[in-house]
Amino acid sequence: MQPIYSFQTAKQIIAGKESLKRLKDDIKLVNKNIKSALIISQPSISDLGFVGTIKEQLEDQGIYVNINLDILPEPTVENIEDVFQQTSNTQYDVLIGIGGGSVLDTTKILSVLMTNDKQVRELLGTDMVEKAGVPTVLIPTTSGTGAEVTPNAIVTIPEEELKIGIVSNHLLPALVVLDPLLTVGLPKPITAATGMDAFTHSLESFISNKANPLSDMFALESIRLIASSIVEAYENGSSVEAREKMLVGSMYGGMALTSAGTAAVHALAYPLGGKFKIPHGVANSMLLPHVMEFNLDACTERLALVAEPMGLAVSGLSAEEKARKVIEKISEWTATLEIPQDLQAYGVVEEDIPSLAVSAAQVTRLLNNNPKKVSTDEMEAIYRRLLG
Amino acid sequence: MQPIYSFQTAKQIIAGKESLKRLKDDIKLVNKNIKSALIISQPSISDLGFVGTIKEQLEDQGIYVNINLDILPEPTVENIEDVFQQTSNTQYDVLIGIGGGSVLDTTKILSVLMTNDKQVRELLGTDMVEKAGVPTVLIPTTSGTGAEVTPNAIVTIPEEELKIGIVSNHLLPALVVLDPLLTVGLPKPITAATGMDAFTHSLESFISNKANPLSDMFALESIRLIASSIVEAYENGSSVEAREKMLVGSMYGGMALTSAGTAAVHALAYPLGGKFKIPHGVANSMLLPHVMEFNLDACTERLALVAEPMGLAVSGLSAEEKARKVIEKISEWTATLEIPQDLQAYGVVEEDIPSLAVSAAQVTRLLNNNPKKVSTDEMEAIYRRLLG
Repeated sequence: MQPIYSFQTAKQIIAGKESLKRLKDDIKLVNKNIKSALIISQPSISDLGFVGTIKEQLEDQGIYVNINLDILPEPTVENIEDVFQQTSNTQYDVLIGIGGGSVLDTTKILSVLMTNDKQVRELLGTDMVEKAGVPTVLIPTTSGTGAEVTPNAIVTIPEEELKIGIVSNHLLPALVVLDPLLTVGLPKPITAATGMDAFTHSLESFISNKANPLSDMFALESIRLIASSIVEAYENGSSVEAREKMLVGSMYGGMALTSAGTAAVHALAYPLGGKFKIPHGVANSMLLPHVMEFNLDACTERLALVAEPMGLAVSGLSAEEKARKVIEKISEWTATLEIPQDLQAYGVVEEDIPSLAVSAAQVTRLLNNNPKKVSTDEMEAIYRRLLG
Repeated sequence: MQPIYSFQTAKQIIAGKESLKRLKDDIKLVNKNIKSALIISQPSISDLGFVGTIKEQLEDQGIYVNINLDILPEPTVENIEDVFQQTSNTQYDVLIGIGGGSVLDTTKILSVLMTNDKQVRELLGTDMVEKAGVPTVLIPTTSGTGAEVTPNAIVTIPEEELKIGIVSNHLLPALVVLDPLLTVGLPKPITAATGMDAFTHSLESFISNKANPLSDMFALESIRLIASSIVEAYENGSSVEAREKMLVGSMYGGMALTSAGTAAVHALAYPLGGKFKIPHGVANSMLLPHVMEFNLDACTERLALVAEPMGLAVSGLSAEEKARKVIEKISEWTATLEIPQDLQAYGVVEEDIPSLAVSAAQVTRLLNNNPKKVSTDEMEAIYRRLLG
């Protein structure tokens, strides 16, 4: 526990079924006199009609709207700068990002590129952004990264085979819209990976060395919501109730990690994204049960506290028994949700393991939060458990 | 429960023992180039050395600092405009309010007076503030109003004997600092009244017609924290642990009410403040058990859900029995904390009751949130229970 702890989040959050339909009114919360807006998304999301819904509502309000759908999954520096070049010739009053973590993070970065005369590479790291950006509206379509409420944006640096974060309060949005109807059509593998990613955010925040009373509340409520709905959302994707719990739960995960930070799961996941293009949610979900198994003896009491919010019948058990039940349940989910457990499917071979571990060991910002020190050898051993 | 619900809060929150000492660094979270700051407070708070601590830290950073200590308790329109006249000849990069709800609310109002060419009276009501204000830092010294995280500011209108709210997102601060050490010296009656006020915020938010998954999380955690510490904070004021729980709990109360709204307790309290200058926290605390008794049959299930977070032994009891235990506990606190229960001590006599009820009936913004309709006759009956 930290003696001094902090929390920051989006300025305004609107949640609930059909909340996207209210954007024409709610956009005024950002600024009463919006004249121009840029919608940032991807073709797959536009095909579902969501981008059109936003455009129509804003145009009905007399707002000039442009659309850019060129955000790639797990975007690189070049992709982001390319989109910036395409869009920076117009001044916008608001940027609206609708999509998964890649779209939301890119929207956050574009917003500050538009007001700071800097390249993306100059913003990497913590607190490198000088000026507030163009106000943003972030609308997640996965549950999820929690990116809509974090001051972080992750960028892939291809030549270094790395994913690096930009961390700045200026990345926080003016408005978040959480409409569960945007997530009912999510394919099963994405529901599974992004859902387990959200759970990872909350669980890592709860056992983080920087855990505190603020982050604990968000983490435990997130764990409660996700545990009660993840299997239902996976098996019965059209359940709006399960989708809403997942969406609110993943936002709380973002709030928890903003305050307490994530830890070793994330540190080990980044090289898998940077070198092998494994999507962030998939990499975290693959690693979660193995890293928790490794962490068990260093955070038994904290893991035990998670059993009850997870809905596990543990009364009368010892802390260690409770903690083991938590890890068993995570492994059970990994099977039920068909989370990939073989890195070879992504082209990883035994010879890659040492350099993956070396890369992961560099993510000290997150490893410092882990309740147990992880040696490079131990990281290699964890990766090997995912080598079939 | 609302199908669509919203939440907004301060941009950044720093909490924990001795967090005020970090202000010299944390002030940079507001803006990296702050040149001038105005500290807004009251003589009693300055006498405790808190204003000096802030001034010294900022001056060490080369920031020009002015101080205004002229905020009155439960400030009137005239008091606020008077302080505005005194301070508006200088441009400040940040306003720092340190004090109870009156100081924090006045700081929020000054911030928007400085950027909007309007009188206080023109801002009364919801969403009447056009432009963002000067960024604010809000530092509560009571636990409390939760004013540090709400978009509301309450103003007394003496000629109408009314208290009216200014409600605008532009009132939300850039930074909140929650240092429990600022509250260890609070006198017992203020600890009691402000603590019960905070509990009222959370309980009314939880039974509000606008309660939702976001507000419920804050409300229940607030109730848990306050219930576990209010008697300890009252009886052993120097317990930093109890003080910290109260401070975080009262902030969560502010977050809950921002999303779900308060209800009949607050509606009935405003005329007691407007006509008889009864401090807000005292008025709410006096009314709380009586209004909950009145509400009981309309929100039995919701009140029952509060029993466990309050730490009450209720397993096996029916919902109605649990709800009754909750109200009994509130009454027990009223006695233990020596909450005034006699309006006559504030000059209220039987003849005043009808006009108090007429005034309360006008606070429809809050009465609409109450789970049970309250007639003017029923309001009179509730006031009469406090007439000795």
